[in-house]
Amino acid sequence: MHAVDLIQKKRDGQRLSRSELEFLITGYVRGEIPDYQMAAWIMAVYFQGMDAEEIAELTLIMARSGDTLDLSGIQGVKVDKHSTGGVGDTTTLIVTPLVASLGVPVAKMSGRGLGHTGGTVDKLESIPGFKVDLSPEQFITQVNKIGLSLVGQTGQLAPADKLLYALRDVTATVDSIPLIASSIMSKKIAAGADGFVLDVKVGAGAFMKTEAEALELARTMVQIGQLAKRETVALVTDMNQPLGRAVGNALEVKEAILTLRGEGPARLTELCLELSAEMLLVADITNSRSEARRMAEENFRTGQALGKFRELIKAQGGDAKVVDDLSLLPQAGHAKEVLAPAAGYVHKVDPLVIGVTAMELGAGREHKDSVIDLAVGIELQTEVGDHIQKGQALATLYANDRQKLEAAAAKVLQAFEIADGKPLLAPTIYRKITAKEL
Amino acid sequence: MHAVDLIQKKRDGQRLSRSELEFLITGYVRGEIPDYQMAAWIMAVYFQGMDAEEIAELTLIMARSGDTLDLSGIQGVKVDKHSTGGVGDTTTLIVTPLVASLGVPVAKMSGRGLGHTGGTVDKLESIPGFKVDLSPEQFITQVNKIGLSLVGQTGQLAPADKLLYALRDVTATVDSIPLIASSIMSKKIAAGADGFVLDVKVGAGAFMKTEAEALELARTMVQIGQLAKRETVALVTDMNQPLGRAVGNALEVKEAILTLRGEGPARLTELCLELSAEMLLVADITNSRSEARRMAEENFRTGQALGKFRELIKAQGGDAKVVDDLSLLPQAGHAKEVLAPAAGYVHKVDPLVIGVTAMELGAGREHKDSVIDLAVGIELQTEVGDHIQKGQALATLYANDRQKLEAAAAKVLQAFEIADGKPLLAPTIYRKITAKEL
Repeated sequence: MHAVDLIQKKRDGQRLSRSELEFLITGYVRGEIPDYQMAAWIMAVYFQGMDAEEIAELTLIMARSGDTLDLSGIQGVKVDKHSTGGVGDTTTLIVTPLVASLGVPVAKMSGRGLGHTGGTVDKLESIPGFKVDLSPEQFITQVNKIGLSLVGQTGQLAPADKLLYALRDVTATVDSIPLIASSIMSKKIAAGADGFVLDVKVGAGAFMKTEAEALELARTMVQIGQLAKRETVALVTDMNQPLGRAVGNALEVKEAILTLRGEGPARLTELCLELSAEMLLVADITNSRSEARRMAEENFRTGQALGKFRELIKAQGGDAKVVDDLSLLPQAGHAKEVLAPAAGYVHKVDPLVIGVTAMELGAGREHKDSVIDLAVGIELQTEVGDHIQKGQALATLYANDRQKLEAAAAKVLQAFEIADGKPLLAPTIYRKITAKEL
Repeated sequence: MHAVDLIQKKRDGQRLSRSELEFLITGYVRGEIPDYQMAAWIMAVYFQGMDAEEIAELTLIMARSGDTLDLSGIQGVKVDKHSTGGVGDTTTLIVTPLVASLGVPVAKMSGRGLGHTGGTVDKLESIPGFKVDLSPEQFITQVNKIGLSLVGQTGQLAPADKLLYALRDVTATVDSIPLIASSIMSKKIAAGADGFVLDVKVGAGAFMKTEAEALELARTMVQIGQLAKRETVALVTDMNQPLGRAVGNALEVKEAILTLRGEGPARLTELCLELSAEMLLVADITNSRSEARRMAEENFRTGQALGKFRELIKAQGGDAKVVDDLSLLPQAGHAKEVLAPAAGYVHKVDPLVIGVTAMELGAGREHKDSVIDLAVGIELQTEVGDHIQKGQALATLYANDRQKLEAAAAKVLQAFEIADGKPLLAPTIYRKITAKEL
């Protein structure tokens, strides 16, 4: 087998067999196939695409390219969730304790933030004492004990994906649905869960800008799950404005706690309930959608979900008192309100501008090795559809470097579009894709 | 400027500007842009193509990427010819002395053979004493003195093309018309001539398998010539059987001399007259096509062309007596005839099989560093359309390694298709493309 022939085959629109993909990917990971041949193959994939089985084969080969987590020591159907990345998206901190409190074992590895999107691991680290670097044994023991553990990525999960992603990044081949889908799913599969609930964001603050693209990505990933024998459900959800009101690590933990108390913003709460219901179904806790939804709502109301979050914090060395006393979370030294220049309806809150500005305040990383400030960020006071008065606060900015506040305030103001007349409201959830609907 | 943005631009079907191409190509030659980005860009070019101006810019940038020959010290319009490569194609050895004898200055650099196609430099070296490695000064002085010099490539002509070609070879991006056209034309332009006559071969023994592809390549190269202000004419010619009867270095020199004497095979003679007429027109020796053709025929008849070939050999240190005594050329130690197994018409003589078998006998190079045997090869005794008797010689094989003859004879026999009924004869020349006809 020669790499050049496999490049030509893809270039000419043919599918590669499992052994051909195996030859390419493992050869690449071993350094036997050079970057330039892989780059040519990836560009050919960009133009010619891959069929569903091909994508699933590629995904499984990448998933097996390094360490894989063995969660067989955990009883029950392990369900993982994944979001393609948005702004003000703190669902993991809410959904995982909620479903864990209902008997779904969650052994979840999360990432750090990059660019305008935050990362669960960073958010958790804003809880004083919280440790995200458990050993695999500690991780599994904890899930068996309290039903939940949230950690950073350990080991070398899907190194093929890491290499391919770095190559795609410099060869203008990032936005290929088969490659995005296999990248996400290979890491998820290597992390060992039995089923997945995916949140595919669409809109100005998301990687997928159109609903058609988001749907295609969602369908592709559900199909991979089906072929890889991991039940997978995807929700296509709105990212044309930040999901929650808080953008920044400690601010989002605070919002997660408020939401677990039943005091969170409506759209965030709604999406958490829907994601939770899907996880309950995938985990076979119930077969009824309405029952799943009811169970999720009830454990919000009864405080069981909040209790599970408290247990999680305690189990991972954090100060669980933050759940009852939010002032124990890191606080920024300076704040500044952004005021409405005129009365009217909020027509737009650009999530990309909000995300980038929060990053610039120190909440996120511009580069992989940027140092972040857990206390800072943006708290939105309004959302699309609200009617506001002139001079009313649109958002509050938090910073430790006071000098950053002026420029950030000007930017955040630009993120808002205020006009006469009620705007059309986008739904929070556009579509749900299950294997049955493919 | 970032390479990744230029890859994306081409990926999305946009044209690159001159400065963008300059950034890519010179950056690549300097080692600042890595192979993997270039490979991705080339694959994007494969799918998206390039427009005429873009191809011309790329060609000129590659032509200027290394040494360029300055032929301004030679009086007159310097015309170069180029063939895309075929089997039994010894036109250069015939056409260049013919047009030089009519006043066209020819300062020509040629290549060595590779694979199933021969190279002019190898053929010339089968003339005892002939030197192909003149200094640029000797080269120019000789053209000023006798109107003709044929040498091997000196200096670093178009190193960008060399690098790109090597990369295309391993990334399944060789067969892209814009890249083939710019590769050929960049080397020709770097070699300094004012105008070009191109012979684009089409058929089983050529790189271009269909007339449509060959036409597109011809048009693309003529367009590059026009935009680069070098008058360029292309003939699209048949390579569904070997052009001449001889395949192998000394055998082809012998055939060239016979043809210069007016005793050559009809199709080879015809193509040489047409190529010569085009060179006379490009060189402004005459403005009349019929006059050009008449002049070419006359200098065959009068022996002026043969005389010029004699002068060339003498000027470059060779033994000019070979022109009158063909036995002075290297002779193979063993010969074997391939006989017709049945009577009938010759319907096919597969040029690829003939070329590859001649290579295997030692006439050509399988790899760049293979050692060749100048004496060996194949002499065809028949061609498509001939009626033959059972047992009549179809071809004679020449080898110095007798053991090779058996297998070669079997292969050569396979190259022939003999059947009842007269076959349709393909024309020698399919089309002529000039700038006017674009």
